[in-house]
Formats: sequence, C-alpha cells, structure tokens
Amino acid sequence: MSGIASIHLVENALLVSIQDDVNDTEILELQDSLSRRIAQDNVAGVIIDISALEIVDTFVGRVIAQLAGISKLLDAKTYVVGMRPAVAMTLVELGMYLPEAQTALSLSHALSQLRSD
Amino acid sequence: MSGIASIHLVENALLVSIQDDVNDTEILELQDSLSRRIAQDNVAGVIIDISALEIVDTFVGRVIAQLAGISKLLDAKTYVVGMRPAVAMTLVELGMYLPEAQTALSLSHALSQLRSD
Repeated sequence: MSGIASIHLVENALLVSIQDDVNDTEILELQDSLSRRIAQDNVAGVIIDISALEIVDTFVGRVIAQLAGISKLLDAKTYVVGMRPAVAMTLVELGMYLPEAQTALSLSHALSQLRSD
Repeated sequence: MSGIASIHLVENALLVSIQDDVNDTEILELQDSLSRRIAQDNVAGVIIDISALEIVDTFVGRVIAQLAGISKLLDAKTYVVGMRPAVAMTLVELGMYLPEAQTALSLSHALSQLRSD
C-alpha cells in the first residue's frame, strides 16, 4: 500500500494526505481505516491534505467529498488544506463544491480553527 | 408493535431508537407518533439512536432522513447518535449525507449540544 492510507493524529484531529496516484482499492481501505480511527480516537476533526494534487478529476473530487461525508456523519469536522488554485477551479467547473468540508489555507490554520470550536 | 416506536422524553428532547428489524408499517406509525409528540411536548430536539444498527441500507437511510426532515419542519433539531463507522461508510456510498441531521457521538453529547443552543 502506498502513502495514501497514512493517517496521523495531530492534536485532536486526524491528518490524511491524498496522493495523486490514489486508486479505488486504496480509497476503500482509507475510508475504512479513517472511519474506524474517527470513532476510536474520538477526534474533533479530520484534515485532508491535498497539496500533492496538481490536478483533480471527478474520481478524486468524489473521494474528498465521501471522506468529508463520512467524517461529518461520525461527528468530526472536515478541513481540506493545501488546495491549489487550479484544483479549486476544476472542482467548481465539475460542480463539486464540497459542501461537507471546510477549507483552510494550511494545516496550522485548520488546527487553530478546530481549537477555537 | 416492537421496540421501534418507543419514544422517550429526555430533558427537552425526544429519544427514538431504531431497531434493525424495523419494517414499513412500524416506520409509518413511528413518523406519525413522533410528529405528534414533537408538537405536543414542544421539544427542542429529536435524538435518533442507531447504535443497534450494524448495517444499513437505503430503506433505513431514508427512514432516518425522513424522520430528520419531519423534525426540522416542526422546528426541532435532529441528532443522530451511535453511528458505527461501517454505517457511516455505507450511507456515504449510497449518497445519503443526511443533510437535515446533525450527528453526535453519544446521547450525552447530543443533549449538551441541545442545551447550548
């Protein structure tokens, strides 16, 4: 398994990095382990780092949306960090506005927002 | 009638537990009695406990979404508590993000959120 499924606990949040070569199998494993970790570790938030993504398509967009949806259902806030301008443009062109996720400029911004909640 | 339709008043909220063998008739009865109780008891929230559900399908997902929708129209907040990680994953895969409901880790979390509103 590549780096996709690495989940790190940072303060009271789980940090997940999405690599650009992520595939279907890895995503299912990631969803599975992430949802178990959210319940186990009782975290307040999930931070999805997509700074490794230079481009994005509907598959990856849906992956992010699903991770955010799972986190929300398990009572954790989702922050997407490290989004490049081109990625934001593409997501909007694809009609993917990620309603379940908040975005933050960086990991430290996301953590400070989580702290102030 | 099985335990499905049991509705309990806890503080200023109605607690409803969904059993995994719930059927269509029971759901209609539950929707009916829940909506009457929300109006009668003048509650601030409805807490749907789904910890008995180990798996979920579109029927149960729609049941939860409909209960949340009814509560919202009657001016009560809905909290879904006790969701298992596998259930969250399945709901998201089915495209059911439960927009009308908030989720909370436990009954006490939901009650404290209701108190602070």
